[in-house]
Amino acid sequence: MSLPLGYRYAATYAGIRKVEKDDIVLIVSDSPASAAAVFTRNRVVAGPVTVARRNVRASRGRMQAILANAGNANCATPTAEQVATESARAAGEALGIAANQVLPCSTGVIGVELDPRKIANALPRLKAALDPGSFDAAAAAILTTDTRSKTAFAQVKAARIAGMAKGSGMIHPRMATTLAFVLTDAVVPPPVLRTALKHAVERSFNRISVDGDTSTNDTVAVFANGVSKITPSAKAFSEALAEVLASLAQQIVKDGEGAKKFVTIEIRGAATDAAAEKIARSIANSPLVKTAIAGSDPNWGRVLSAAGNAGVAFDPTHADIDMQGVAVCRGGLAADFSEDELKRKPDSPECSIQFTLRGRGRGQTRFWTCDLTEEYIRINASYRT
Amino acid sequence: MSLPLGYRYAATYAGIRKVEKDDIVLIVSDSPASAAAVFTRNRVVAGPVTVARRNVRASRGRMQAILANAGNANCATPTAEQVATESARAAGEALGIAANQVLPCSTGVIGVELDPRKIANALPRLKAALDPGSFDAAAAAILTTDTRSKTAFAQVKAARIAGMAKGSGMIHPRMATTLAFVLTDAVVPPPVLRTALKHAVERSFNRISVDGDTSTNDTVAVFANGVSKITPSAKAFSEALAEVLASLAQQIVKDGEGAKKFVTIEIRGAATDAAAEKIARSIANSPLVKTAIAGSDPNWGRVLSAAGNAGVAFDPTHADIDMQGVAVCRGGLAADFSEDELKRKPDSPECSIQFTLRGRGRGQTRFWTCDLTEEYIRINASYRT
Repeated sequence: MSLPLGYRYAATYAGIRKVEKDDIVLIVSDSPASAAAVFTRNRVVAGPVTVARRNVRASRGRMQAILANAGNANCATPTAEQVATESARAAGEALGIAANQVLPCSTGVIGVELDPRKIANALPRLKAALDPGSFDAAAAAILTTDTRSKTAFAQVKAARIAGMAKGSGMIHPRMATTLAFVLTDAVVPPPVLRTALKHAVERSFNRISVDGDTSTNDTVAVFANGVSKITPSAKAFSEALAEVLASLAQQIVKDGEGAKKFVTIEIRGAATDAAAEKIARSIANSPLVKTAIAGSDPNWGRVLSAAGNAGVAFDPTHADIDMQGVAVCRGGLAADFSEDELKRKPDSPECSIQFTLRGRGRGQTRFWTCDLTEEYIRINASYRT
Repeated sequence: MSLPLGYRYAATYAGIRKVEKDDIVLIVSDSPASAAAVFTRNRVVAGPVTVARRNVRASRGRMQAILANAGNANCATPTAEQVATESARAAGEALGIAANQVLPCSTGVIGVELDPRKIANALPRLKAALDPGSFDAAAAAILTTDTRSKTAFAQVKAARIAGMAKGSGMIHPRMATTLAFVLTDAVVPPPVLRTALKHAVERSFNRISVDGDTSTNDTVAVFANGVSKITPSAKAFSEALAEVLASLAQQIVKDGEGAKKFVTIEIRGAATDAAAEKIARSIANSPLVKTAIAGSDPNWGRVLSAAGNAGVAFDPTHADIDMQGVAVCRGGLAADFSEDELKRKPDSPECSIQFTLRGRGRGQTRFWTCDLTEEYIRINASYRT
């Protein structure tokens, strides 16, 4: 796919990570872009989240740059907000734009001071390196425990949308998780952009879970600079944006810490969509369901028990469960299936769980998660977030 | 400690487990006892939970026997309730008491039919083996993935209280979890027993978590047969019962699947006790906190982030965190502590986390959990619950 017009990217090593690997990214739109962003719902928020939220408001949704670093969350330190404010100001000065047109983001360890001089020192190099072709380098520089870059692309009419994301652990978005940046050259006014982003996030980043932990730094931002002069309908743009975010969200789950399997959970027949989501979330976050999937065990009893713990009223005798397309539970009871045959089926990198309540309910949802493996423990018993 | 008077115990192998190890237990009071029980809040409940709840009510809290099996949860099968009803009736007949004076319990795999003939066949052997000294054999027979028995004892005046429990995984009680049976020879009328049990469970079994999953079979039952003729005050009895249940609950956490460390979480200064509990539960269930503890990493940033996800409003700048008695976070920021010194401290089998909100709130709670290790994954990727 071709990249949206009018954006340039740069990444370099600012000395924030311990290992020498690009850890700071600058994304610049050639002209002011409509901007919208959603942030973590954690009560504890990082400095850059506070500043980014303020800048989106102060700029009235017209921004021009994203400055993101990996390796330090710039969170829960005395200087967090000040460092984010100063960095945005320094980037604005370097680029000749207002400080509030810069969206700062950080990801990495919490509670360790981020030295603002490292960012200030990197800015001239970043500015000099800005290039329309460096999208992939930017997508790589924001990663932490991720094993691969996450990018997604779409077109709406002839306008282009490109997105990048990072995320592998601490994934349990209630609003938005991790960092994701989406850029488009379509013409989209800020209010339309905000609505489209909210809608898309609700059906993508808010429907995934790796480990049930929501980070302090989650940010999903979208810029629309209108350089293509193409104005898609709000509906067409919203759909294309949702497609990009759904792809990024699913890539995050597939790269979940230690994950070997990608699990799609579908709920149908709940009283409401919200009830369906609660059931899906309870199944997706159950360590017993996730370890059973890791062990290729078609353990529908754990799925039923997790659904029963969702805090949603339902009659278990109306519950049907299918795993890998095989009926394993009907009316809350074991269905007649060949265990041996089914045991081979979950032993694939993609796993599906369908939970259906028979009756008149029309609430439904789709949710994505991954298995829970020993590798998750190894990563998190040693990595300091 | 000496056992309460007037109780006999028996355990045998009924062929329910695959391995030949006692899997069925009968506990009989020589005379009808006051009885109270609390059960899982999972929407999906096992057959024996339905029957036990009905029998406690039908007998007006006067019961005489507990019949418990391990190896099969008798849950989510077409015959679950019928098998539990029949087994209670058969036990009543064998003992010459009413069927509704028998409390049936099961634990083990969900969704596999439990053959009632296995229980019927074992009853004559159980009855013949009933012995006042077989308490420990009964406590061993109810275990599943547990690595050791859990028992606890107390005295109130000269009356005796003895408790046994099983539980290692699927531990996240919202009401009562796993199986626990407490027997006393004190004189305690059913209403006093019910109140004391509710109070004790709220501060013990409802304050522990291994993996955040609540089982379909959780039952905590207490019998008081009055054989000692000693009538303690309601308050004294309630405190002694709470002590026994707190010990059992903590033993379950210490034997949590794969657990190497026992973690005590104390919350102070929240707006209400309920808010404190929510914060404690969020920290206790965070895989990132639990893996950090497994890795002896004093990672207070993850504790703060988990607290921020509890769904409770608080100002992070008022949050203090101590780990192993060392101030690691003050006012939401890193405290001045020696990381090297602290890193050695969490490397002990007992770990403490104190989370205090400075201000006028008086809400507090104490909660117990364990670390999350690779062994948990190994156990649950292969064991079929």
